[in-house]
This record gives sequence, structure tokens and C-alpha cells, in this order.
Amino acid sequence: MSEKSSGRFVVIGGDAAGMSAASQAKRRYPGLEVVVLEKDRYISYAACGMPYMVSGVVADAEDLFALRIEDARGKRGLDVRLGQEATAIDPAAKTVRYRDVSTGKEETLSYDACMIATGAVPVIPPIPGVGYEGVLTLRSYGSGLVVRKFVDEHKPKSAVVVGAGLVGLEMAEALTLRDVKTTVMEMAAGPILGLAPELSRVVEEEMASHGVTLLMQTALERIDGPDGRVAEVQGGSETIPAELVLLSVGVRPASDLAADAGIELGVHGAIRVDEKTATSAQAVFSAGDCAEQVHGITNEPVFIPQALSANRQGRVAGANAAALIVGKPMSETNPPAYGTIITKVFDTEIALTGLTLQQALDHGLDAAVTVIKSRSKAHYYPGADPLHVALVFEKGTGRLLGGQLVGKGGAVKRIDVLVTALSAGFDLDRLSRLDLAYAPPFAPVWDPILVAANVAKKKV
Amino acid sequence: MSEKSSGRFVVIGGDAAGMSAASQAKRRYPGLEVVVLEKDRYISYAACGMPYMVSGVVADAEDLFALRIEDARGKRGLDVRLGQEATAIDPAAKTVRYRDVSTGKEETLSYDACMIATGAVPVIPPIPGVGYEGVLTLRSYGSGLVVRKFVDEHKPKSAVVVGAGLVGLEMAEALTLRDVKTTVMEMAAGPILGLAPELSRVVEEEMASHGVTLLMQTALERIDGPDGRVAEVQGGSETIPAELVLLSVGVRPASDLAADAGIELGVHGAIRVDEKTATSAQAVFSAGDCAEQVHGITNEPVFIPQALSANRQGRVAGANAAALIVGKPMSETNPPAYGTIITKVFDTEIALTGLTLQQALDHGLDAAVTVIKSRSKAHYYPGADPLHVALVFEKGTGRLLGGQLVGKGGAVKRIDVLVTALSAGFDLDRLSRLDLAYAPPFAPVWDPILVAANVAKKKV
Repeated sequence: MSEKSSGRFVVIGGDAAGMSAASQAKRRYPGLEVVVLEKDRYISYAACGMPYMVSGVVADAEDLFALRIEDARGKRGLDVRLGQEATAIDPAAKTVRYRDVSTGKEETLSYDACMIATGAVPVIPPIPGVGYEGVLTLRSYGSGLVVRKFVDEHKPKSAVVVGAGLVGLEMAEALTLRDVKTTVMEMAAGPILGLAPELSRVVEEEMASHGVTLLMQTALERIDGPDGRVAEVQGGSETIPAELVLLSVGVRPASDLAADAGIELGVHGAIRVDEKTATSAQAVFSAGDCAEQVHGITNEPVFIPQALSANRQGRVAGANAAALIVGKPMSETNPPAYGTIITKVFDTEIALTGLTLQQALDHGLDAAVTVIKSRSKAHYYPGADPLHVALVFEKGTGRLLGGQLVGKGGAVKRIDVLVTALSAGFDLDRLSRLDLAYAPPFAPVWDPILVAANVAKKKV
Repeated sequence: MSEKSSGRFVVIGGDAAGMSAASQAKRRYPGLEVVVLEKDRYISYAACGMPYMVSGVVADAEDLFALRIEDARGKRGLDVRLGQEATAIDPAAKTVRYRDVSTGKEETLSYDACMIATGAVPVIPPIPGVGYEGVLTLRSYGSGLVVRKFVDEHKPKSAVVVGAGLVGLEMAEALTLRDVKTTVMEMAAGPILGLAPELSRVVEEEMASHGVTLLMQTALERIDGPDGRVAEVQGGSETIPAELVLLSVGVRPASDLAADAGIELGVHGAIRVDEKTATSAQAVFSAGDCAEQVHGITNEPVFIPQALSANRQGRVAGANAAALIVGKPMSETNPPAYGTIITKVFDTEIALTGLTLQQALDHGLDAAVTVIKSRSKAHYYPGADPLHVALVFEKGTGRLLGGQLVGKGGAVKRIDVLVTALSAGFDLDRLSRLDLAYAPPFAPVWDPILVAANVAKKKV
């Protein structure tokens, strides 16, 4: 490989992974031409902020943009092309074909390296009525505006949220804050798949206390209403009146473009990438919700569509693609994912990392879980709320496999201690010996994580 | 060693370390006779909660007790003797001599194992006027009641807090909340020794904005007033009117009893213990604020008088002393300390762990510090306050040596991520690759710790 200082990097998709890649490539090698093709009319929106935009907690929808288009083009020097949808990649010819979504006009662009950051799309359950007016999803920025506008204009009295994952819970809160009587319908036994039953119950009680109806172990069967407009939802033996249905049963990778180009797909249809984010096609990289991650505990490829993962995988893709173009070694590697999630529903916060008990058992591990209840602060300090901790560990070795927290007042951000401990390969004994911070306004003398580790290690 | 199931364990001191040791020994071997000699009239008070008791944030002073005397005696089966002060230990004869502080009557008690948990006492600066009425310290529960009562009864208009460490800041807040115009006098350049200057400034601004006057780099010289009652404090070129002076310039280990018994002392006069908490005398253990800890980074003995350290070292002492008595191996070891501290002054929170830059340099390490300013939540989410992070690291290797946080709303409890990373021996690259939790109400996509690690690792 001979070194050169210029070349063209084409990035398909202008959200978290794509813009991280584009910015990183240009920052490292300013001589590169970096083109971003984005089919929508905006870039870099904060998808995770949308429930708060719908609820009104975030008043100005524009606040959700992490990077203004003028800055992307001006300060960062990126050739961002809005309303341009990539329709085909030819890895042999090193070209991308794309279409102006307004005019339909197609063009072909050659590249020295290309990166696919097409994200994920909501799964639409194959049941009658999903196309009815008032049946919405939340994914793109546009879809968020549609939900907000629908609530603003129609002022629905009732809604059904289908799916009790992160988005389902956040939207149940958002709609309730907008005075919409909300029912959450979920096939699993409790909210947030894999949450320990004791913690699940706390979340369910919080939702019920705010007037949300929970229909667990209930499959969505049919959406119905007059004139193609939703009026009721059927699931299990129930028929629930609803002027709005929010489908949040998960997302799938938007990997059709890659598959059509003969690029190998992996787990759950996500684009297979190595730790340098290279796909099976020469000079084609991928990152973000459309691409695989590697799980830090199982070392297996996983589909974990999350914001931090997308951003950092995008940075790695941008750095390595740029290095490839200029003939330097590709030195960046994508860090493993641990499936860390955090959210809140009303005043109750939920955080998970690592493997759930079921995931651990499914991987053939001799796993167990210990659940404890402690407090977020010294018992006598105002705001000392209950804090529930679940630790999943391997019997025999005591290796930490995962952890979960449910509590209030920011207390569950200590999930990051467990993330760090998992990353370090700690067992429960190591975890129990940490010199965690104590002062009455912040924790009991024995932080709840230490309490949980001390209880769990006796059961190894 | 032959095994036996009974014997007498004498614990000197009934606070954190002592009661932890006593409880642990009895829990492991219920056949043991466990005697606790406590010179005061109470046990197990939460020393760290006292500023909040003085301020009134904790209304009922009784709430500060972690364990009621009835429960210690009843449920836990401990022979707790209040108002009994140990006056001499004879390690050769295996006896403790103690005195009833009311009657003066002395008695001798034999032991199979003994444990010294005499804590620490406030340092009183050797300057004129420290004995004046209105010059107080905060350490024992009794001293906390005295301060509260003084404020209740005298309603002082002005106070000087000497020392801007943890207790100094907490008491400045407490007195201000009680409408006492407060000045903090400190010899060092800023509050909380070793805090990076950028972070120090935030703390100083917070205190000033609440009406606290800060006199840094000012040595206390003289306390004066009519009739032996404090009226003014002189330091540097200043004379400050004060009806109350709170001395909080640090504590020293209460190790005279040990020294008199010929037991070896170590750093700062703390009782030298090995990792099993054994002292230099056969069958005599020590733990808590009177004993040494080992620092997790330098592996050197340190004097770090803190609540968690005292509790866990006490447990280790209790378990090992009990094992020794019954002829089992002493299997517990005391975890290293990292000097983790956390506190708040008004709405500004402060946390530190590991080595400060100066401490690292003093240990001959080629150390540097990186300071960044980020936010505690997504920028568009309500309550996204500034969060300052300082990382101390070793140049060349990038090894993490310490960290500091200043922020609001509970955000600085993420110091525990750094504690965990230090314990695992992470370098900045490992730290920067952590899958830390993100959601708008809890953090930006890149948690401030990741931002700091990413910035710092470029400077290795």
C-alpha cells in the first residue's frame, strides 16, 4: 500500500454512527473528501430523546439535534447531501448508486471506502389493522414529530402501547403526561425483558400508580376501527378502546442495501463486521444499529442497537476507513458491548447490564441470581429511597455475569460500577471489596452494590 | 492449634469498627463470649451524619444510630458495657484493664483475643484561645449534640470554621442553613486538599454564592474574646468576629492505649496492622480510624479514617479474631483503600478517589492530570448541569491513578466507576472503552467519564 492524503469516503446514513464516522475520518485526514448520503431531511437527531419531546419535558423538538447541518458542512467540512437515498452498492466497482427522494433522479458516486450506517427500522407485527390511521411507531425524528403532532391535534383520550421494552415504557410515561389514558400490552411476563421478577414488580407498581394499565402475557391480535382509523385493540381476551396505538415491539437492522450488494449478514440480520468494523466486502465498513456488535461476556456477535455503541462503532469505522484510504494500518477496534441499558418510567429508574439470568442459562452457564433491597442514601437522610439490586453470577467461580438496578433519584446510574466490573472480569469477591464512595446524601455506608455482592458471594 | 467453640473476645470501642468486629465474631461463632467496652454512653452512631443533624436536615438526632443498644445486647447477643474506658492492655497476660467513667472503679478482664477500635480524635491546633467557650469540634456523637445545642441556645450570628476539608465544608453549609454568617479559614490554596484547581474554583464559587466567606492560604493564629468566651478569630492579617469557632483541621488516631501496651505504631501514629488486621502483639487486632489501611495504588500503609474502611476492617478483625480463638485459620483480608471521598456543599457535590496529582508526584510517578467539563445529562434534558471530571494518570503507560468529580444532582456518585477501574488497574484506553449507561435523563451519550478518558488518553 502506498500512502496518499486524499480520496473519497462515502457514508450512507447521517445519524449517530454515520456522522461519527464522517467526522472522525475528516478529523484524522482533512485531505479526504467525505460525502454523507442521508435520505431524510435532517442529521444527528437524538433518537433516545424523542419520548421526552412527545411528553413535552423537552419543549423544543429542535433541541434534539446533536449537530447542526451548517456545522457539519462548515466547521467539519463534510459534504452532507440530504434527501439522497442510497439504492445500490457495487463493491467490485467501488460505487454507490443513490436517488434524490424528491425528484427521483439517480446518480452514481465512486468511493475509495464506503460505510453503511443505515440504522434500524421498527418491527411491524403482521396483524390486521397495523396500517390504520392512528397506528404509529417511534424511530426516526420524523416519526417522533408525527406522534407529537397526533397528540397535539387529536388529543386522544386513550392509547395502547404495544411492547413493554424501553421505548414502550418511556412512551407510556410520555402519553400519560399528555393526559392520555394508556394501556401497555406485552407478550412477556413483565416489562423489560430479563428483569428479575422482584424488580419487575416495582416497575409494574410504579406504572399502575400513575394510572397505566398493564396487560402482560398478552399478544396483540387485531387493531380495528371505522373508516380505517383505530378505535380499539384486541389482545388476549381483551378489547381495549384506543384512539392511538404506538407499536414498540422492537427494531430490526436496515440491512437490505448491504444484503443486495452481496455483503454477509449475521445475527438477527445485522451486517456482519469484524472488530475493525470491516464487512465481508473490500473497503466497505458498517457501524451502528444496522451492524453487529460483539458481546463482552459471551464474545459472540449480538444485535444491540444502542446510541453509545453506534457512536463509538461509527468512530472506529471512520478512523479505519480513512486509514485504509490513505494507506495506513487500520488500528482502531470496536469495544465490546455489554447490553447496558438505563431508563425511567415516572419516578422509577431501571438499569441493566451484562447477561440476564435467562441469557446466562441459555449460554450453558451454571448461573444464579441474587436480589437485595437496600437504600439509595443513608437511612436517615431525606430521599433515602429503596434501591433494588440483582446480581447474576456463575456458580462455582463466582464470576459476575450481569446486574440490574431499580430505584429512584438517579441511584441506578451506579449500574456503571457493574459495567466496569464486568469489563474487568471481576468475581463477586472482588466486587464486594471495592472502596465505593460513602456519605449520607449519596449512599449508605455499605453501598447497595456491596451489600448485593456480599450476599451473593455466600451463594456461590 | 486445637479447635474449641468458646472463649472471650474483648472489643475496645463500640462504634463502626468495634461493633462490626463484635457482631461478625458472634455471628460466625455464637459460642463466643463477646464483650464490648465503650467509654461513652452510646454505640454505633453515624459520625458522617452529624453535620446534617446540626443543620436540621436530619431532624431527630436519634436517627443517627445504626444499631440500638437493646438490639446489640438482645438480637446480637453482645455483652456491651457502656461508660467503661479501657486503660491498659497486657498482651502477655492477655488482660484488659478498664475503668467505670462514672464511679472510677477499675476492673481487669482476661481475653482470648482482643481488638482495639478506639477511633480518632480531632487535632486541636496549638494556638491561644482554643479552650475558650464557643470553640468546638465535631467528632463524637456527644460533640455533635454540643454543637447543635450551642446553635440552638446561643443563636450565634457569626462563626469561623477552621479547615476546608470534608467536615469543614459540611459544617459551613450546616451553619449557613442555621442562619449563621460563616467564614471558612484554610491554610491550603483551596478547599479539599488535592482537588484540581478548576474543580476547586467551582466549589469556592458555590460557597461564595451562599454567603460563605472563604479565607484560603490563611493560618489560624489566635482565638480571642472577653471572659474566656470566643468573640473573634485572627488569621493572616484578618480579624473575624465569631461567636462560634468550629475546629476541623483533621483527626489523629487514638492510639495511646496501644502504644502504652508496647504495640507498634505506623504511619501518622496509627496502629500498625497486617492485612489480617493483626497488630504486633499476639492475639491483639485493630481496625477503624485508629489503625492503618493499605493504599490500593501505592501498596503503602496509610491513615485514611473513613466509615466504610472502618466497617469492613472491623468485620475482618472480628472474623479473624474469632477464628484465632476457636483454632481455625484466619482467612479474611482487609481490602485496600483508595481514599475515596464524596461530599457536597449546598448544591455542589465533590468526589475523589485514588491519588491526587501531588500525591502521585510525591510517589515519584510521572503523573499528569486532565480536566474536562461536560454535563450530567443529555444537553436538552432538564437538569443537565455542568459536570467536571479530572483524571490523574501515569504518562507513558496511561495507567489511571486517580479521579475527581464536581457536579450536581447526584452526578458525582459515578466516582465509583473510577474506584472500580482503579481496583482493576485500568489504563485510560480501557476506561474509554467502557459500555457506560446512556439515556437522556441520566447522561449524555458519551458519559463525562468517557469524555475525560478519551481526552486524557491523547496526552499519555
